[in-house]
Amino acid sequence: MTTSPVKTSLTGIKPTAEPHLGNYLGAIRPALQLVERYRSFYFVADYHALTTVRDPSALRAHSWTVAATWLACGLDPSETVLFRQSDVPLVFELAWVLGCVAATGQLERGHAYKDALARGEAPNAGVFCYPLLMAADILLYDTNVVPIGADQKQHLELTRDLAARINHLYGDGVLVVPEIVTSDHPTVPGLDGHKMSKSRGNTIPLFASAKGLKKAVFRIKTGSEALEEPKSTDGSIVYELFRHVAPAEAPEMERKLAAGGYGWGHAKQDLVDALEAYLREKRRRYEALREDEDALERILAGGAEVASAIARATMSRVREATGIGLAR
Amino acid sequence: MTTSPVKTSLTGIKPTAEPHLGNYLGAIRPALQLVERYRSFYFVADYHALTTVRDPSALRAHSWTVAATWLACGLDPSETVLFRQSDVPLVFELAWVLGCVAATGQLERGHAYKDALARGEAPNAGVFCYPLLMAADILLYDTNVVPIGADQKQHLELTRDLAARINHLYGDGVLVVPEIVTSDHPTVPGLDGHKMSKSRGNTIPLFASAKGLKKAVFRIKTGSEALEEPKSTDGSIVYELFRHVAPAEAPEMERKLAAGGYGWGHAKQDLVDALEAYLREKRRRYEALREDEDALERILAGGAEVASAIARATMSRVREATGIGLAR
Repeated sequence: MTTSPVKTSLTGIKPTAEPHLGNYLGAIRPALQLVERYRSFYFVADYHALTTVRDPSALRAHSWTVAATWLACGLDPSETVLFRQSDVPLVFELAWVLGCVAATGQLERGHAYKDALARGEAPNAGVFCYPLLMAADILLYDTNVVPIGADQKQHLELTRDLAARINHLYGDGVLVVPEIVTSDHPTVPGLDGHKMSKSRGNTIPLFASAKGLKKAVFRIKTGSEALEEPKSTDGSIVYELFRHVAPAEAPEMERKLAAGGYGWGHAKQDLVDALEAYLREKRRRYEALREDEDALERILAGGAEVASAIARATMSRVREATGIGLAR
Repeated sequence: MTTSPVKTSLTGIKPTAEPHLGNYLGAIRPALQLVERYRSFYFVADYHALTTVRDPSALRAHSWTVAATWLACGLDPSETVLFRQSDVPLVFELAWVLGCVAATGQLERGHAYKDALARGEAPNAGVFCYPLLMAADILLYDTNVVPIGADQKQHLELTRDLAARINHLYGDGVLVVPEIVTSDHPTVPGLDGHKMSKSRGNTIPLFASAKGLKKAVFRIKTGSEALEEPKSTDGSIVYELFRHVAPAEAPEMERKLAAGGYGWGHAKQDLVDALEAYLREKRRRYEALREDEDALERILAGGAEVASAIARATMSRVREATGIGLAR
């Protein structure tokens, strides 16, 4: 008989203003499915956001927004660990230790920093050191698996490299070297057909009212075929979005479009109805969570307690190994 | 009637192996005199040392060495605050916040980093970020005055700049902008006439035995005048060291040298005796402190408690101002 210990996964969530359907389908839902295979940790990366967000009340509110969003979307705090990065400040101590074994050149090659330079910005030191904090976020919690999109691969390679270097210098087992699992998440089209993103202003807000959903959907451009004409789903934003939120009913819509007598206006109304059915319960839960910030804080505090205990154990190994503080 | 609140000063101490007379006269004694004017904080910068020290037991032992050294040299833990940097890990959180308002270019111009590059080294990110941690060390404790040597001025200007920037962005009074007080401390010649320093191997160890002191002093080069000849103090290493440790008796030695009939061997023996008188009690206290590491740890823990309380208050202001964590 063999026992297979449960592996842990970690997902960082950047605080943002208004989550949209693209966030949900492309990031939140896939990340929530990790619970099927791993003991899953999720954290609100408020201190990462400080590299760019200068408005304190926005930053604070955004942290609640994302925590409430993920809970509303099905994150179960009794099965997973949800916490706020800043509630476990030991992460900065580990980031310092990692910095002491990271070559400055490795950070200079970091793509977030290089992208900022390429845009003609003068990136702050937080942007420069971002990969160290990201590595500390992962390594502090003995994370086994980090599921990422392809664009984050470089930072994750650095994380593995730093963990391996610490273990090489100070002994095996000081840090857990995580596995990287890359996965392709669906890209969701926005109202204009481009990838849905806040910066393009083409989003369907995840917690819009039924009226708000309708308003957004009716902004979508469609073909100009007459009602009775048969219509193709090829390149149809309406159909594509419908397929995402009501996959079981998508063949039926495809059939109706092809048959003729079913207009783009009908399709839009069906999409509005499908969205409302898909999002209604999430919206209700989200609103309830946002109305009781104390309850939200209790959930975050509970997560921080679990995360802190692991963090303290990790830092105790790191301090012992590097010669910091008391020997035990 | 006016009240003048007591200002605080802060001194960082890098952990090193064996303190020598040059450390004492050039750094330790002047820093200990700060208690006359300020409420003085001293900390053992063990996490700064991690940028270069890779031997854990050496790093740990060096922290005890410097703590015991300063205590033996007269640091009074009931009047001052002595703590170990790593015992207040909130300093790394503040360093991150400061990094988010520091331009990367400001760190690229840091001279410790530039010096390392000039020596052909590949400096690690800890060396690069050193000025941020140094700034956090100072700002975390609401330090009013930082007494420094001229070579540290650049880093201190950055500290003031970052504190002012935080206050500008987030409101006056989030951080205390410290005053810089530069002072010229005596340079002590080593056995070969160059500045006393461990790397030159020309030191008089501060806690050498009487025998060790004699052995060191008799390595000093002197003039080759005969016993009866008159001798000048100009350029005499023996006289210069004697003047440092027995200033009241220096004119007498100068007179004897000028009179003739007093050889360099006599002068060396007088220096040995003066050193032994100057250092005996310090050595005794140092040895007692090193033999009771528990007592040393209790002193450091007491200091950490005081320092932590101030650190928590500072970080509470910083978090409130920047929008991190709970609003209060």
